[in-house]
Amino acid sequence: MKLRDLADQLQCRLEGGATNPGDIEIQRVAGIEHAQPGDLTFLDNPRYGSFLGTTRASAVIVSVAQAIPDGAALGVLRSATPYITFARAVALFAPKSTQKPGVDALSSVAPDATIGPGASVGPFVTVGAGATIGARTIVFPHAAIGAGVHVGDDCLVYAHVSLRDRVVVGHRVILHDGVVIGSDGFGFAKQADGTHLKIPQTAGVVIEDDVEIGANSTIDRPAVGETRVRAGTKIDNLVHIAHGVTVGQRVIFAAQVGVSGSTVVEDDVILAGQVGVAGHLRLGKGVMATAQSGIPGSIDAGQYVSGSPAMPHTDWLKASAAYRQLPALRKRVAELEHRIAELEEKLEECRSRLNPQTPRNS
Amino acid sequence: MKLRDLADQLQCRLEGGATNPGDIEIQRVAGIEHAQPGDLTFLDNPRYGSFLGTTRASAVIVSVAQAIPDGAALGVLRSATPYITFARAVALFAPKSTQKPGVDALSSVAPDATIGPGASVGPFVTVGAGATIGARTIVFPHAAIGAGVHVGDDCLVYAHVSLRDRVVVGHRVILHDGVVIGSDGFGFAKQADGTHLKIPQTAGVVIEDDVEIGANSTIDRPAVGETRVRAGTKIDNLVHIAHGVTVGQRVIFAAQVGVSGSTVVEDDVILAGQVGVAGHLRLGKGVMATAQSGIPGSIDAGQYVSGSPAMPHTDWLKASAAYRQLPALRKRVAELEHRIAELEEKLEECRSRLNPQTPRNS
Amino acid sequence: MKLRDLADQLQCRLEGGATNPGDIEIQRVAGIEHAQPGDLTFLDNPRYGSFLGTTRASAVIVSVAQAIPDGAALGVLRSATPYITFARAVALFAPKSTQKPGVDALSSVAPDATIGPGASVGPFVTVGAGATIGARTIVFPHAAIGAGVHVGDDCLVYAHVSLRDRVVVGHRVILHDGVVIGSDGFGFAKQADGTHLKIPQTAGVVIEDDVEIGANSTIDRPAVGETRVRAGTKIDNLVHIAHGVTVGQRVIFAAQVGVSGSTVVEDDVILAGQVGVAGHLRLGKGVMATAQSGIPGSIDAGQYVSGSPAMPHTDWLKASAAYRQLPALRKRVAELEHRIAELEEKLEECRSRLNPQTPRNS
Repeated sequence: MKLRDLADQLQCRLEGGATNPGDIEIQRVAGIEHAQPGDLTFLDNPRYGSFLGTTRASAVIVSVAQAIPDGAALGVLRSATPYITFARAVALFAPKSTQKPGVDALSSVAPDATIGPGASVGPFVTVGAGATIGARTIVFPHAAIGAGVHVGDDCLVYAHVSLRDRVVVGHRVILHDGVVIGSDGFGFAKQADGTHLKIPQTAGVVIEDDVEIGANSTIDRPAVGETRVRAGTKIDNLVHIAHGVTVGQRVIFAAQVGVSGSTVVEDDVILAGQVGVAGHLRLGKGVMATAQSGIPGSIDAGQYVSGSPAMPHTDWLKASAAYRQLPALRKRVAELEHRIAELEEKLEECRSRLNPQTPRNS
Repeated sequence: MKLRDLADQLQCRLEGGATNPGDIEIQRVAGIEHAQPGDLTFLDNPRYGSFLGTTRASAVIVSVAQAIPDGAALGVLRSATPYITFARAVALFAPKSTQKPGVDALSSVAPDATIGPGASVGPFVTVGAGATIGARTIVFPHAAIGAGVHVGDDCLVYAHVSLRDRVVVGHRVILHDGVVIGSDGFGFAKQADGTHLKIPQTAGVVIEDDVEIGANSTIDRPAVGETRVRAGTKIDNLVHIAHGVTVGQRVIFAAQVGVSGSTVVEDDVILAGQVGVAGHLRLGKGVMATAQSGIPGSIDAGQYVSGSPAMPHTDWLKASAAYRQLPALRKRVAELEHRIAELEEKLEECRSRLNPQTPRNS
Repeated sequence: MKLRDLADQLQCRLEGGATNPGDIEIQRVAGIEHAQPGDLTFLDNPRYGSFLGTTRASAVIVSVAQAIPDGAALGVLRSATPYITFARAVALFAPKSTQKPGVDALSSVAPDATIGPGASVGPFVTVGAGATIGARTIVFPHAAIGAGVHVGDDCLVYAHVSLRDRVVVGHRVILHDGVVIGSDGFGFAKQADGTHLKIPQTAGVVIEDDVEIGANSTIDRPAVGETRVRAGTKIDNLVHIAHGVTVGQRVIFAAQVGVSGSTVVEDDVILAGQVGVAGHLRLGKGVMATAQSGIPGSIDAGQYVSGSPAMPHTDWLKASAAYRQLPALRKRVAELEHRIAELEEKLEECRSRLNPQTPRNS
């Protein structure tokens, strides 16, 4: 693709040291350090500006204000949001899915299931009774779509996804390989003999529009009520969302996060990797937690927390720095005890000399 | 279903402010806060008693002693164990599996495999040579049942479960989507050149009766001996159980727990979410660990632990509270050092005035 | 198998108290504690030498120097590396795969895919356009091999593995059930309206020779560059490796480890269970981290770290011991404060008596 055409499609101003930057041929996208001739790259963080002098890329997307080193022969696309423009460029070069529209002859689709126009159902997919697959949605091999499931339009349901009966999925949702939605929540009642009676988990799960869920993540259904992930939320791999949880809009869960039952996560929350959240809590809008935080109680909107148990991030920074110094602190305290004992003795001696009649332990 | 019939089936005393409570029509089960007309709900914790005055439910399961507000029009079912009775009610309203008994034509079942009476084998299921599927067991689409596997009666084996060769599963076991049982344990011997020689992991895994295992959990097989999960144990999603582990009866593992090789977990242990347990340990009967605990050594029966490394829970409560105050503690120690230095100086001055001849550093 | 033949195949010196140790019939391998007659076992750690007097095994692999109790009737195989020799013995007794070479009639293989000689493609496997499966590689049921994927020779690809389009896998690689390779990395750009724009993740993943990856682990592809796992690395179950990560040779990741995007893990690193590593870091050659460590920054080669945030292991041992004593330390500091206040008061009194004219707060 010519850089001129890319500039058009990405709505960027075209510049550059080359004689005819519009004629530069772009074949791939790449990071600035590893780019080769024929690559389009980007620079968002001015800290890395020195790479502009050394990159082998043929063209670069930069901010409106970014200085370009004299003599750099590379083509330049100016954008108010270089990273977002780069994302769009990557999409232009992305290989298209090789799975054709239509229902593969080797699938097992219930006679009363509805497959939308332009949808693709791959080999060995099962679609249960009364299920609906939306328009242009691609269901990859081995996905198991249960009875009564509703999947919206323009979704990607990758291989080995399980959508258990009656799960509802919105439009433009991406479910990566091995995702399980609608498995039974972990709910038992302890009986008098010590055994655990299963509370049947039969209520619904709703995944709203524009959600993406990473490989092998699991989202359980509750006994009553519902589990819900609201629009625009992005969930990484191997995440666990328990029964009855509500996850707000535009939430980010990094890999291996776990959220326990009935917790409410409000909009724009960000949980870093391996964070654990206890059950029946509320994380207010915009809460952020750093990796491996353990959250045992509700958190007010806008708080930034760390640690297990979680505390305000700035407190944690100081506490965890002090933690490492703990052995030194213990030594200092022992030293103080020694010095004080000595002081006490000497002081007693002084006092007894000042007051020879006073008994020592006055 | 009429409330009168529910009372019969659940063996509850029927009461209630409505004129003919037995005639109340129940269509669903629901939590007390979200219940609608037509719903049966329950109240177990007297703390939530005020909901009885506001719930829109048509009927409620309560304890024998629970007071009902005057004028509440809802039907009442009295039970000695309201939560357990509610669990039974949920089961009465649970939708039945839509998968019919019999072997789906699109499955791949070895000629010498045995499928029990009333069992159901879904599309794209594989059943290996010599495997046995018990009576009334339902195997959902895409499950992979290896050669020589034995699955008992009345099990639910959900989609994408892998049971590797020769795994043994008891009766009434529930394996959620994506569970892997019998994958190779993580066992290697470091060789002189630094490479890792695989120790073949070919011994057995036994899952006893009434076990439930959550979505995408994994249980490995060992080189020698066996991995075993005893009767009545419940395991949540994304849990890892390593080779040679023995898990006792009625154990509870919440989501994302990991147990390392050869550890013995005795009966009635409860591990909360994201707990990690080192290898070759013994967790005594009834041990409890709170979320994200890291257990590096054996623990005596009945202990309740927290933290990483784990310690008695009450110690941890105090230590983690003190942790947050660590920066303040450091300041207090620095302050003490300052005050002591001052004291020492002043005291020396006093002493030298009392003993003018004595050298300062006596 | 006769012990004499085993000695030959394992290249061990044959000894033993039995009259004709070479005639001993070996049927199985077992651990020394649980071994039964007919079993071959091993003793590597001299600490367990007492088991030689009590084991019921028929034969044992021991080191060259190991003393054998008088009168022990068991056959003895001498080896310079007993554990490695045992690993080889386990392999000799391992059951062979029951899946026959050839392409199962119930699979879905693209017409232009290449299946190597002696390879086995099981039922319900999908192999995409242009994919290559190497010689003698076994692909178990329900594996999804995407378009353009390359799998080398002598691999084991277990059930429900997903290899997304264009993933490259070397020779002798073992991928356990449910492994996902090449799912989209977790990359988004926040837009002005607060929504997350997906950065398409279309670059490659390379798994080099002799890698083993545990059940339900996930390895993501990046937007640009590549994700790579180098030769001889062993990865346990439920591990997450993010987009753009490079994992060196002979690395060990225990279960539930997570490594964030673009991090470089050099050769011979060992991360114990549930360790988390932040993004854009470098872990130097041979770094070791104990279970549940949280690694927020790069670590120099050869370091041994623990804790979250991670610190040198010896510091952590002391700090975590001191942590548990924190409440006691706080008490000691409070006590010191009390004693110092008392000292200060008494000293002032002394000083005022020595200098009656001086004001108290001089």
